[in-house]
Amino acid sequence: MVGSYKIRTDLALENREKFERDQVEVEGVALKQDYDQERDIRTTRVEIRTEHGAKVMEKPCGTYITVEAPDMALPDKKFHQEISRLLARHIRSMLPRDGKNLSVLVAGLGNREVTPDALGPQVIQQLNITRHMVKEYGNSGLEEGPACMVSSIAPGVMAQTGMETLEILRGIVRETKPTVIIAVDALAARSTRRLNCTVQLTDTGIHPGSGVFNFRSGLSLETLGIPVIGIGVPTVVDAASIVHDAVSQLLETLEEAEMEEFLGELITPGLQRMFVTPKDVDETLQVLSKTIAQGINLALQEA
Amino acid sequence: MVGSYKIRTDLALENREKFERDQVEVEGVALKQDYDQERDIRTTRVEIRTEHGAKVMEKPCGTYITVEAPDMALPDKKFHQEISRLLARHIRSMLPRDGKNLSVLVAGLGNREVTPDALGPQVIQQLNITRHMVKEYGNSGLEEGPACMVSSIAPGVMAQTGMETLEILRGIVRETKPTVIIAVDALAARSTRRLNCTVQLTDTGIHPGSGVFNFRSGLSLETLGIPVIGIGVPTVVDAASIVHDAVSQLLETLEEAEMEEFLGELITPGLQRMFVTPKDVDETLQVLSKTIAQGINLALQEA
Amino acid sequence: MVGSYKIRTDLALENREKFERDQVEVEGVALKQDYDQERDIRTTRVEIRTEHGAKVMEKPCGTYITVEAPDMALPDKKFHQEISRLLARHIRSMLPRDGKNLSVLVAGLGNREVTPDALGPQVIQQLNITRHMVKEYGNSGLEEGPACMVSSIAPGVMAQTGMETLEILRGIVRETKPTVIIAVDALAARSTRRLNCTVQLTDTGIHPGSGVFNFRSGLSLETLGIPVIGIGVPTVVDAASIVHDAVSQLLETLEEAEMEEFLGELITPGLQRMFVTPKDVDETLQVLSKTIAQGINLALQEA
Amino acid sequence: MVGSYKIRTDLALENREKFERDQVEVEGVALKQDYDQERDIRTTRVEIRTEHGAKVMEKPCGTYITVEAPDMALPDKKFHQEISRLLARHIRSMLPRDGKNLSVLVAGLGNREVTPDALGPQVIQQLNITRHMVKEYGNSGLEEGPACMVSSIAPGVMAQTGMETLEILRGIVRETKPTVIIAVDALAARSTRRLNCTVQLTDTGIHPGSGVFNFRSGLSLETLGIPVIGIGVPTVVDAASIVHDAVSQLLETLEEAEMEEFLGELITPGLQRMFVTPKDVDETLQVLSKTIAQGINLALQEA
Repeated sequence: MVGSYKIRTDLALENREKFERDQVEVEGVALKQDYDQERDIRTTRVEIRTEHGAKVMEKPCGTYITVEAPDMALPDKKFHQEISRLLARHIRSMLPRDGKNLSVLVAGLGNREVTPDALGPQVIQQLNITRHMVKEYGNSGLEEGPACMVSSIAPGVMAQTGMETLEILRGIVRETKPTVIIAVDALAARSTRRLNCTVQLTDTGIHPGSGVFNFRSGLSLETLGIPVIGIGVPTVVDAASIVHDAVSQLLETLEEAEMEEFLGELITPGLQRMFVTPKDVDETLQVLSKTIAQGINLALQEA
Repeated sequence: MVGSYKIRTDLALENREKFERDQVEVEGVALKQDYDQERDIRTTRVEIRTEHGAKVMEKPCGTYITVEAPDMALPDKKFHQEISRLLARHIRSMLPRDGKNLSVLVAGLGNREVTPDALGPQVIQQLNITRHMVKEYGNSGLEEGPACMVSSIAPGVMAQTGMETLEILRGIVRETKPTVIIAVDALAARSTRRLNCTVQLTDTGIHPGSGVFNFRSGLSLETLGIPVIGIGVPTVVDAASIVHDAVSQLLETLEEAEMEEFLGELITPGLQRMFVTPKDVDETLQVLSKTIAQGINLALQEA
Repeated sequence: MVGSYKIRTDLALENREKFERDQVEVEGVALKQDYDQERDIRTTRVEIRTEHGAKVMEKPCGTYITVEAPDMALPDKKFHQEISRLLARHIRSMLPRDGKNLSVLVAGLGNREVTPDALGPQVIQQLNITRHMVKEYGNSGLEEGPACMVSSIAPGVMAQTGMETLEILRGIVRETKPTVIIAVDALAARSTRRLNCTVQLTDTGIHPGSGVFNFRSGLSLETLGIPVIGIGVPTVVDAASIVHDAVSQLLETLEEAEMEEFLGELITPGLQRMFVTPKDVDETLQVLSKTIAQGINLALQEA
Repeated sequence: MVGSYKIRTDLALENREKFERDQVEVEGVALKQDYDQERDIRTTRVEIRTEHGAKVMEKPCGTYITVEAPDMALPDKKFHQEISRLLARHIRSMLPRDGKNLSVLVAGLGNREVTPDALGPQVIQQLNITRHMVKEYGNSGLEEGPACMVSSIAPGVMAQTGMETLEILRGIVRETKPTVIIAVDALAARSTRRLNCTVQLTDTGIHPGSGVFNFRSGLSLETLGIPVIGIGVPTVVDAASIVHDAVSQLLETLEEAEMEEFLGELITPGLQRMFVTPKDVDETLQVLSKTIAQGINLALQEA
């Protein structure tokens, strides 16, 4: 973060990388990487374990799993089924393990009218919703054996509803009493290279400053009273980021203070209201929303 | 209502007409009609005042105002502004009058994916949403002087969310504490003649059996704890209705019992899952959703 | 067809059934039925071979294959893949066999804004479009070996464009020179029982009076200069049909002339602008559009 | 244009500004500015009159009118009606004046699935389409006196159709014989400051390299045989532009050759597939598409 502007990333992985470059170990932050060479899938697990780690990383304590696959944006059905299975495994590992009566509310965050922000609402449309059937008929009402109760909501954005997402979800949680929330959202990354080919899963929920459009209040165990699993795909980069990167590269010999001065001038408030996204964002999101929906369906079917 | 099927209408007006045909006064039900000849707008006010009236009319006690205008489906901008002003007047007459701090939650009921059921979600998109701005900046944040707080939600339908509309709204009401709800919904009429050119306003909310797709639980002062104003446009007729009418006309000489036997055979369960709607439902709903949204905007701007 | 109204069906199968009831052989019309008991799939092949047959059947000479499967509306993925393969086989049997350079224009007819009329536009969105890639890179540009050129267009409806579908397609055909058109459209059936679980394929194209909203001019070899394969799913029944059926059942003892008189009174012009469709039309069309798109993709991939 | 990348702008105005900065008169290019101080509307008329001018400006000979109004993105209805009237005047000035039988095809270019590219398809939906009615009933069929024939098409993008926009339009033009095309498209600007508050009108059509996603072939009198009026709103800036600007500002003391070397390294192919757009692009496009549609409706109603 520099000057009066802030280069955002919602990926813990990218926060961690800042320190990697300086070959610094961050106290209280554990890092584990897996690379599946054949499929070109990289899985990174960042665990923020202490308050010190959380402060340095600018993210709450918890687990952040990032799945990166450059081919994730391509329409290869078989590959996407593999990614779905991988996501299902990670989702299950984050679900509360205290028994059978799992009831999951999936919240599709974001604005369905803006293509790169529509990931959440699109995922919601492809879920197997079971809560109303389990409530009416019990598990016998379902074809495929016992299942947990799944409900979903696309709460919209504040400009449309006049309400904070937290308010809407808190109300629904109190009334329908799910045991866990899965919140799906489009994220902002630092690097355009990660757009639309990365999924982050975290047991810490969704935090202020996340999402294509900021939330004022986080969605988490603290604010909602039940565990919140956050699933996100970076679909945009702040316009300021790409200017920052270009200039940093040019001026790498400068002192940091000097550079910040330059950047403070270049990154105008107007630019801060802009985002960067790939031209084929519609096609890739169609593919990705399906992959994530399948991952959630699989995870909950076997939960 | 006959045999094992039920010919539905969500219009109090149409329930009342059954008795009109028999020239029967219904005890506990008052009727007042106004006809604006120049504009061909008929306004009917049905007041159900006693439990007896409610039982006979199969609707709860309260006021039902119906505005019928055959030209409402036509794209005449000026005429629609007049209808909007008329609706605004009736909405204001139903708003709680106990002071200034009005906070209104507008609920756009129905399924945005099914054209004749999308009225509610379409109205929502055209409202002036102010709650988040009033909360942040006070009334000074708004251009046009003091205004009440307006928020909105399109809760979706149970097959999509796994939750009852009542559950979602009850949660949001508890959390955001509006003083009144305006629930907008597509309705079922008995007569195809009324489709897409009739608006019903009622201070009794929305009842089980209303809407293109039934609600299990009503939305009302009783279930939500705050007044609920229902605004609806009949966009469909149950398929059973048109069979019923055709046969009744043919067999008017028959005894009622005999007729019910005939109808019980003709109206199959398959037919009961069908609805009838005009071919130009998309264009007329586009016009009507704007007219109603303007009516609500006007009513709340001056409230 | 009676009096001043017309009970429509776009299914040759249903025209044929009229004669079945009377156990009449229609000269010039051959009928073949197949029933797959295990999967409950009925395939009927109607061949209209002579002008006499065409006149009696009120449809042009050619082949009409109807696939009926009551479970087609259910979201069973595996079953739908089987239906897709079956459709692919029938489509391939109708494609011109004169060589390798197949270029197919798929036209998604209908109004994307009206749920039961949106089948065509929805199918279009799920096709593998290859024409621009084959033109730029040759077949080597495609992953999966040689393929025919596939292009697509959703021409919209006349109220939106001011042009007849025939005009738009004729222009595009002259300019892009496909060898065959596949026109996908929502159809009208006579029987509500067939809605959303029946696919008709025909090598005769699309005819005036077909579709949820009528075409003035047919789409066929005669009007477009290249073969037109029509693929349709009945998604609506004319409102007049269900009245007709109910009354016919009641009055079966009457003389036909008498019945027509009754019906002419009952079926008002207003009713003729109405259609009947199932309440879950959105969900079933989502499933069916995918099944048909997969069928076309399969057929053209191996063509 | 520098190195192997190209900083694009579709605005003649912005090409002209390059020379302004150097206080250079461009031979063969005339410039006229009007500023309405009260309403803060700036109208610039660039006329490219000679081949030399066209070469320097990298745009074909013709007239380019740009209307800039910072408040254009705000939802002020009255102000938008004024802009609509201003646009109508400029559109009429570009229409062929050779008589009464005007027939206009409005083409809504771009991808309706990508928010900042959906301007064209959104405008199309709000037009008064009259061609089919004039053809059937003559002008007497219209309420408001004589009118020209208006038809419209949203041809989609090549990835969806497999066809070039030029092919589709050329076919339709040959078949339906309009006298002029109005092509509406989302454009790319150089400066984020102009996004969503600028309209360019030109009698030269649409050129390769225009639009959010490039066209291979231009749409013009040369390629379509009838005059093409292009109407565009810049909704995106190429990601490379903002890097270019930041770096230019930093390195203004450098020689141009040196700067190009730097930029050639910074602007990667990945970055060239990215665009920059404001976060509220959905709301502003809703307002702007209506303003432009009204402008076209007004122009053609009185044409």
